[in-house]
Amino acid sequence: MEQALQRAAQVMAQVNELAAISEETTVITRLFGTPAFLQASNWVLGLMKAAGLDARIDNIGNVRGRWASHHTNAKTLVIASHIDTVRNAGKFDGPLGVLLGLDSITHIIQARIELPFHIELIAFSDEEGVRFHTTYLGSKVVAGTFETSLLHTKDEMGITLQQAIEQMHGNPRQLAADAMAAHDWLGYFEIHIEQGPVLYERDIPVAIVTAIAGQKRAEIIFTGTAGHAGTVPMNMRQDALCCAAEFILETEKLAHSMQVVATVGKLHVTGAASNTIPGEVICSLDLRSANEAMAAAAYEQLQQTCITICHKRKIVPEWKLVQQTTPVQCDEGLNTLVAKAIQQCGYPLVTMISGAGHDAVAISAVSPVTMLFVRCYKGISHHPEEAVELKDIAAAIKVSDNFIQQLIHRG
Amino acid sequence: MEQALQRAAQVMAQVNELAAISEETTVITRLFGTPAFLQASNWVLGLMKAAGLDARIDNIGNVRGRWASHHTNAKTLVIASHIDTVRNAGKFDGPLGVLLGLDSITHIIQARIELPFHIELIAFSDEEGVRFHTTYLGSKVVAGTFETSLLHTKDEMGITLQQAIEQMHGNPRQLAADAMAAHDWLGYFEIHIEQGPVLYERDIPVAIVTAIAGQKRAEIIFTGTAGHAGTVPMNMRQDALCCAAEFILETEKLAHSMQVVATVGKLHVTGAASNTIPGEVICSLDLRSANEAMAAAAYEQLQQTCITICHKRKIVPEWKLVQQTTPVQCDEGLNTLVAKAIQQCGYPLVTMISGAGHDAVAISAVSPVTMLFVRCYKGISHHPEEAVELKDIAAAIKVSDNFIQQLIHRG
Repeated sequence: MEQALQRAAQVMAQVNELAAISEETTVITRLFGTPAFLQASNWVLGLMKAAGLDARIDNIGNVRGRWASHHTNAKTLVIASHIDTVRNAGKFDGPLGVLLGLDSITHIIQARIELPFHIELIAFSDEEGVRFHTTYLGSKVVAGTFETSLLHTKDEMGITLQQAIEQMHGNPRQLAADAMAAHDWLGYFEIHIEQGPVLYERDIPVAIVTAIAGQKRAEIIFTGTAGHAGTVPMNMRQDALCCAAEFILETEKLAHSMQVVATVGKLHVTGAASNTIPGEVICSLDLRSANEAMAAAAYEQLQQTCITICHKRKIVPEWKLVQQTTPVQCDEGLNTLVAKAIQQCGYPLVTMISGAGHDAVAISAVSPVTMLFVRCYKGISHHPEEAVELKDIAAAIKVSDNFIQQLIHRG
Repeated sequence: MEQALQRAAQVMAQVNELAAISEETTVITRLFGTPAFLQASNWVLGLMKAAGLDARIDNIGNVRGRWASHHTNAKTLVIASHIDTVRNAGKFDGPLGVLLGLDSITHIIQARIELPFHIELIAFSDEEGVRFHTTYLGSKVVAGTFETSLLHTKDEMGITLQQAIEQMHGNPRQLAADAMAAHDWLGYFEIHIEQGPVLYERDIPVAIVTAIAGQKRAEIIFTGTAGHAGTVPMNMRQDALCCAAEFILETEKLAHSMQVVATVGKLHVTGAASNTIPGEVICSLDLRSANEAMAAAAYEQLQQTCITICHKRKIVPEWKLVQQTTPVQCDEGLNTLVAKAIQQCGYPLVTMISGAGHDAVAISAVSPVTMLFVRCYKGISHHPEEAVELKDIAAAIKVSDNFIQQLIHRG
């Protein structure tokens, strides 16, 4: 077996070991700050220490291991991903990036490779944001963008984030000290499963991420007139569901014609009954694009389309913007090196836009960022069926080694 | 004030008095067999007796008052509607027909009009079917089509229909004795609010019902593939909601082009989340027509359309027929008399198909039936805003008097 496959098998074994640490016996759930989460953090801390890193757990619960360059004033390359999960999670989303990072650094140490920069491996404590309904807690602290107002946020049990940090033996007043100053960052490198089907469908192991899409979420309420399904003639109806259906299809059509993805994921018919004409429908809209202008144009066009459809059908629309984030562009310089690495390893070069958010979003505030996506089975994620093949982990290992080599020799 | 308006005012006062008898303090709810329902039945019984009718409550709880002809072997004209209600009901749906019937008979008695037939006024005990999820309990017993297997049906509290009848002091073993033999029926006349907007929109007080639509109800499950709203490109999706939306619009289009009404009233997205592509959608279909062949053709065409859309979108459809009833044609002979009555009273002649079911459906098994619809405000029904104007009640009174006169003189 070639060396990369052997290393991949070791990473896979560690992924499985970490997956066994869960709040639940039959499925994987490790929310930020829970006993299972702390057990996992300590397990990762042990691995880092065993590899020879100078490792610790910081105040927000990130596990951080440094491998220092002899150049004491050097900048730091951060390699990271997260180890918290959603409920009933897959085992690769997050852990794969952390354990591949550990593998890369272990290789550097064992091969006695001289580094002109420090490396810090981080297992972020909260990327999913399930417990406190706010994402990137771990990476925000490291980026120095953590808003202390978040400390008052409560989980379902009424425990504040401040209390949760204290229960983890962190010091909520020392979070700022855990940030890395902007001038210390050489760059940020994260390996993550794609969580989408593109690489699987194209039969390609890895891809560079050029940008992380920005997102606009809206809630739309269509108000028509409820009525008896038997007694109101078709031409006298103001059917809110027919109106919503037309909007859904127009949304789909527009997303096909512009560089956006758009999804109506939730739809609720108020007072629904099979013999009642829907009088009110509430639905969600999720619109994403790496191109901010494109997202804004698509969003505006959909609003206009909604008004036009509603006007034609005598339906009253109510449109609420619920949330929006701006797109993050990955660093061209770092991406060029990742691209070279992929090509030198003999893989086809695919660039992708990440539709899902990642810790790189938070880190991009202070550092150039780059990401490598790894193919996952059918694009399934946030689900026990999430799966990655050994040969794709091996591909990521080779690309990662090559990328770090190029970074060393960039001069 | 003209006489019909005076009589209408009295009917309106009685409608209001009956509306005050409810299971709930602020809204109208009188489900079959409840204490409020029994109070209402006894109130109606008192009115019938006071008017001089030979009145009783039968074993299924119908209030029945007879005014006999001197021709002892004569047939019987049944004038009826129901006094049970849905939850949070309007006050006219049912009671208006019963109290207008009482007004007509009172007029006959007071005017000493000789009848060549008997008249029986019936306040049916269950038309809405809310408590036992089965409609026409009262009219089925009178028609002699009551299936005794229904006695085992349970309400939400686990009380069987048999127990409910016993609690009302009815005898479940004597239901057959309450049926009127087919040869005894002269005809069946029911006045009811339209429960639709046609008369309101056309500004016309009353209409003849030519048929009561048959109905087909289906449940359709669209199974696609759930996925992340950010990571699955538009051209790789099997979005169950987009598929359902296309089906909803095709259903609407087909109903516009054929003599049917079709409604998708319920729609449920399984595991709905704003950032998840819908993987499964369950929706209802309610299709009605007075033309059985047309209903069957439309139903089949929609099934075919569903398959075509699903095939195109790689969605798996599951189609279940949930319920179907055949259309009921009203009696041409009786309708001709109602038509003459409307014209002689000076109103425009409008014929309508009832999209809603009525007790006339059950009675049509044994008797010619005819129905007169009365305009209601904006077509609103099954709702506290249900409203009828005094002048329209007066119109119904005049048409009703005239119809009975014509029936007397038909020879």
